[in-house]
Amino acid sequence: MPKPELLESFANPYPDRDYVIQMTCAEFTSLCPVGGIESDAAELELLKGGAPDFGTITIVYAPAAACVELKSLKLYLWSYRNDGVFYERAVNQILDDVSGLVRPKWMQVVGDYNVRGGIKSVITATRGSRPPNV
Amino acid sequence: MPKPELLESFANPYPDRDYVIQMTCAEFTSLCPVGGIESDAAELELLKGGAPDFGTITIVYAPAAACVELKSLKLYLWSYRNDGVFYERAVNQILDDVSGLVRPKWMQVVGDYNVRGGIKSVITATRGSRPPNV
Amino acid sequence: MPKPELLESFANPYPDRDYVIQMTCAEFTSLCPVGGIESDAAELELLKGGAPDFGTITIVYAPAAACVELKSLKLYLWSYRNDGVFYERAVNQILDDVSGLVRPKWMQVVGDYNVRGGIKSVITATRGSRPPNV
Amino acid sequence: MPKPELLESFANPYPDRDYVIQMTCAEFTSLCPVGGIESDAAELELLKGGAPDFGTITIVYAPAAACVELKSLKLYLWSYRNDGVFYERAVNQILDDVSGLVRPKWMQVVGDYNVRGGIKSVITATRGSRPPNV
Amino acid sequence: MPKPELLESFANPYPDRDYVIQMTCAEFTSLCPVGGIESDAAELELLKGGAPDFGTITIVYAPAAACVELKSLKLYLWSYRNDGVFYERAVNQILDDVSGLVRPKWMQVVGDYNVRGGIKSVITATRGSRPPNV
Amino acid sequence: MPKPELLESFANPYPDRDYVIQMTCAEFTSLCPVGGIESDAAELELLKGGAPDFGTITIVYAPAAACVELKSLKLYLWSYRNDGVFYERAVNQILDDVSGLVRPKWMQVVGDYNVRGGIKSVITATRGSRPPNV
Amino acid sequence: MPKPELLESFANPYPDRDYVIQMTCAEFTSLCPVGGIESDAAELELLKGGAPDFGTITIVYAPAAACVELKSLKLYLWSYRNDGVFYERAVNQILDDVSGLVRPKWMQVVGDYNVRGGIKSVITATRGSRPPNV
Amino acid sequence: MPKPELLESFANPYPDRDYVIQMTCAEFTSLCPVGGIESDAAELELLKGGAPDFGTITIVYAPAAACVELKSLKLYLWSYRNDGVFYERAVNQILDDVSGLVRPKWMQVVGDYNVRGGIKSVITATRGSRPPNV
Amino acid sequence: MPKPELLESFANPYPDRDYVIQMTCAEFTSLCPVGGIESDAAELELLKGGAPDFGTITIVYAPAAACVELKSLKLYLWSYRNDGVFYERAVNQILDDVSGLVRPKWMQVVGDYNVRGGIKSVITATRGSRPPNV
Amino acid sequence: MPKPELLESFANPYPDRDYVIQMTCAEFTSLCPVGGIESDAAELELLKGGAPDFGTITIVYAPAAACVELKSLKLYLWSYRNDGVFYERAVNQILDDVSGLVRPKWMQVVGDYNVRGGIKSVITATRGSRPPNV
Repeated sequence: MPKPELLESFANPYPDRDYVIQMTCAEFTSLCPVGGIESDAAELELLKGGAPDFGTITIVYAPAAACVELKSLKLYLWSYRNDGVFYERAVNQILDDVSGLVRPKWMQVVGDYNVRGGIKSVITATRGSRPPNV
Repeated sequence: MPKPELLESFANPYPDRDYVIQMTCAEFTSLCPVGGIESDAAELELLKGGAPDFGTITIVYAPAAACVELKSLKLYLWSYRNDGVFYERAVNQILDDVSGLVRPKWMQVVGDYNVRGGIKSVITATRGSRPPNV
Repeated sequence: MPKPELLESFANPYPDRDYVIQMTCAEFTSLCPVGGIESDAAELELLKGGAPDFGTITIVYAPAAACVELKSLKLYLWSYRNDGVFYERAVNQILDDVSGLVRPKWMQVVGDYNVRGGIKSVITATRGSRPPNV
Repeated sequence: MPKPELLESFANPYPDRDYVIQMTCAEFTSLCPVGGIESDAAELELLKGGAPDFGTITIVYAPAAACVELKSLKLYLWSYRNDGVFYERAVNQILDDVSGLVRPKWMQVVGDYNVRGGIKSVITATRGSRPPNV
Repeated sequence: MPKPELLESFANPYPDRDYVIQMTCAEFTSLCPVGGIESDAAELELLKGGAPDFGTITIVYAPAAACVELKSLKLYLWSYRNDGVFYERAVNQILDDVSGLVRPKWMQVVGDYNVRGGIKSVITATRGSRPPNV
Repeated sequence: MPKPELLESFANPYPDRDYVIQMTCAEFTSLCPVGGIESDAAELELLKGGAPDFGTITIVYAPAAACVELKSLKLYLWSYRNDGVFYERAVNQILDDVSGLVRPKWMQVVGDYNVRGGIKSVITATRGSRPPNV
Repeated sequence: MPKPELLESFANPYPDRDYVIQMTCAEFTSLCPVGGIESDAAELELLKGGAPDFGTITIVYAPAAACVELKSLKLYLWSYRNDGVFYERAVNQILDDVSGLVRPKWMQVVGDYNVRGGIKSVITATRGSRPPNV
Repeated sequence: MPKPELLESFANPYPDRDYVIQMTCAEFTSLCPVGGIESDAAELELLKGGAPDFGTITIVYAPAAACVELKSLKLYLWSYRNDGVFYERAVNQILDDVSGLVRPKWMQVVGDYNVRGGIKSVITATRGSRPPNV
Repeated sequence: MPKPELLESFANPYPDRDYVIQMTCAEFTSLCPVGGIESDAAELELLKGGAPDFGTITIVYAPAAACVELKSLKLYLWSYRNDGVFYERAVNQILDDVSGLVRPKWMQVVGDYNVRGGIKSVITATRGSRPPNV
Repeated sequence: MPKPELLESFANPYPDRDYVIQMTCAEFTSLCPVGGIESDAAELELLKGGAPDFGTITIVYAPAAACVELKSLKLYLWSYRNDGVFYERAVNQILDDVSGLVRPKWMQVVGDYNVRGGIKSVITATRGSRPPNV
């Protein structure tokens, strides 16, 4: 299960300025829930509930009072490794968990997943509006 | 004949949020209807009505109540394989079929076809307006 | 001489929808009129009036009642092969000829020419405004 | 079924010189025989025996008395479109069929297939030795 | 633990010809054994024994009597997912397991791992000599 | 410690025109403060307070009365080499120091840092609004 | 000294249409005035006043009554070869000289210079506003 | 008709040293003889005997007593513009014509042609052996 | 001063097989000794003895009894950070230090340095011969 | 006139080892002697004897007793800036001048020139044989 309790924040050192922080993890992996696009039942048993998915997660935000601590983000993303989760849910849950912690002015999460069944998927979810001029 | 009845949907897990899903199939192929740009009659007989076309189909949309199920989309796109269809019709029909199923807030379909007769074609069709902030 | 009479059209199969068609020919060639940037008189005699120019022509438009037939476009672009024509005139004439035939809501022609005399040229000409949402 | 009878040759215009001809088709497609890496039985019924495979076929050879006629090669490769064939067999069969027709000094066929199940495959088969100095 | 018992083979359909098969998995992941280059003890507890490693595994071989079955190779590579293994051992063990099954004329395994601690590692191990002319 | 006193300016030779100057240094390096994402205490002692960070700093601005002198900028960026500083602070401090010197109409600083712990970071900070038409 | 008197124009063949012409010279070179970022006095004597700078100059404009003649532009840019000139001045002077000759609706000049002292510079200057729809 | 009489040579300034000269023309065009892979009879009439082919010609050689004069090579390659010639013949004829003029120690000609009918062709012909150490 | 005493090794887990390990650090930095190609005396004082150099170090070797421990290699390369060393000496010293520790069958070190004074340098040094078949 | 007297050397710090040094200058420029491929007499007067040529010079060698000093190489290459010299002569003269100074075990010079008249030229000249194993 993803572990939002692993996430930590630190105080924004420039709270009076609108600026933007982008963090990209190209090593995101989770499991596809049972019934995935490319696997039959025999395969799914091997990894206890799903074939592996791979993708790149990008989180970009304008901090308000707090910033995301990088090492804790790394551990939080690791916690999806053996969890069965659909693309749409993963991206929206990361947005909920990370934005819930640091309450930014604006945050966008993009999940850019590898090809499965000949189809590549990219999911983009957003909270708030990007501040002008950044 | 393309088979829209193969398409399936599932309930959008985040119906209250504007977000965007992009699905790209780089392995789309259909047949060119008789009289295509590069083939004479003798060739057309071989594949029963047309030379093969190849391209990349990208579908991007903001879901409302429902999302497109990926495996069913794969099968739906396969159903064009031995069908003779012009570029303009294929892209618009995919837009009609897929948006007709999930009734999104906005959907765009792009067909990016390989060179034929020294000319490359890209067709872009849209329904609705992209929601702001995503 | 360019031969606009070679161009043919067909009825737009989706006349009620705003959509966009892009056609790119990376094999466009014509002759530079006498006095070109890189050639002296002796060279020009060889090709009867000009050194060869090479470039990529891109035509993108939103169709109204009619679409451009691809094979006829190929032949029309071939008809520039042994014609002496300046860059600015070629791009604007293609815009006039092709848009004159299909009377689109919007059309743009880009001529992206190879380096001559160490300088690369790109000419862009447009008729009308691109429809919103496509 | 692949149709080697579609292949045609023409007399090598430079039979006294060792030289090399390479032909690459980036639009090769066939069907995966039943039991493929990514499909279940329900899917396979759709295309009557297999999920589609896509790849690039490169044929390179040093001609002896005869050369491969390009248009006939195009039709021959089209004839795999609705045929169920494993990668290893397709590449070796193309080598047998094409080299059987033109009896070259040397021929190599490479099948570079798209990712299936997260794994990309490239098969290389050869007849004879490449002549020195070419 | 890696599971070589998942690997399956099939009879080489062209046993009399020297040819080469290359299989590339860009989605290989395993765990770094305790004491890895980038992680402290607290992190390692999260994934029960190691931080995740990511890389691309390429297996290329000249088959003798048997070929590697692709779907079984996929499952075998998945079985490293939650296993703690050093780079050098993983690459050599894959070479031992896969070549032990199909007894090829020649096999090479390359593990191309993502950057860790600012350093990228590539391990290459081989059994036998590549046959000439392929 | 970063040394803003190294920065020098010169009078803008075209003060009546809105134009834009972009300066990019792909060789920026500083030290990560104690407790960085990838290092333990033993490592940190080696470099007296932190593991090295690497990145590209881009400064783009519309000059008012003064321009940034390039050689002095080079020396100023060198002065971060052995300083422990978080990403967010470095980018905002460069913006404060450089814009404080030349008082531009608009300035943006982007710090594009190398991967650490599998995560890449990009920080963008801005002062003022980009003038229209440039 | 740059020689604006080398520039020539010709009458715009399509004066009633808004269109855009882009000319790019990737072989621009001038000398850095004394005191450049990378050179000491001994070096500067060799080239009589400055170390060489290299860059790409792009001029893009919407013509009014006149267009820039390409061959004359080539000669004009050559005339900077042995001239000592700062980046900011060169780009603004080219804008002044070329726009002064053809009096366009809009013109933009971009000077994209090679790295000096580890820093890359790009200068962008503009006159007027780009016409809509091109 | 190709005009080998346009080719000129000059004396090799370093006749005692083995060295290699490579000349690449990315703007080679000729006509396909009647019956080409992509054209019917109606099209062929337009260009008096064939659809246009495009490709890149590379000539590389080790000079003996004479070198190829570049401007004359340009004119010689232009002379193929309106000539109907098969790929194999063009490449071998260029080798015969150019090597016949300068009698090099070794010469190789590569014709890398654009895709026709979905197939790309590359022809390589050689005379003599490349000298060692260059 | 570089600190070879930081380097550690571990026993080769496959001592009976010839295989190859490549380690690449794209974040190598040292200082240029006094009198470097781009700096004057005033600059050199800032960093106490030299302007910074940046490059990529690649070490590739065939292990005998021992392998290089990655984390210790990272620290060893960090120890050049504030050391003044010429390119040729750095590459040869790394080869001496690392090969002196693990005594490989073969080792090659490549230092690929960033442009200085418009010139890029790459130094390659080797000990022993690469084993055949790897 | 090129000034070989500008070149300086320093003693090879590792004279007992075969290793290789590569130096690449992407900013080489000289003038084309009168009668160049793209210029008429009027143009040539502007630069007093020729149109400008641009290219990349790569020098790679195995040092014996001496190495090439980088800053002196930079000045030596600058000395071609206003000199009229054919491609073949420039590359061979650089080889003669630089190898004459440091007397290497092996040296190769490659001049990779920009397109002129639609033709790109690359000249490669060598002295001695590359030592084995480097």
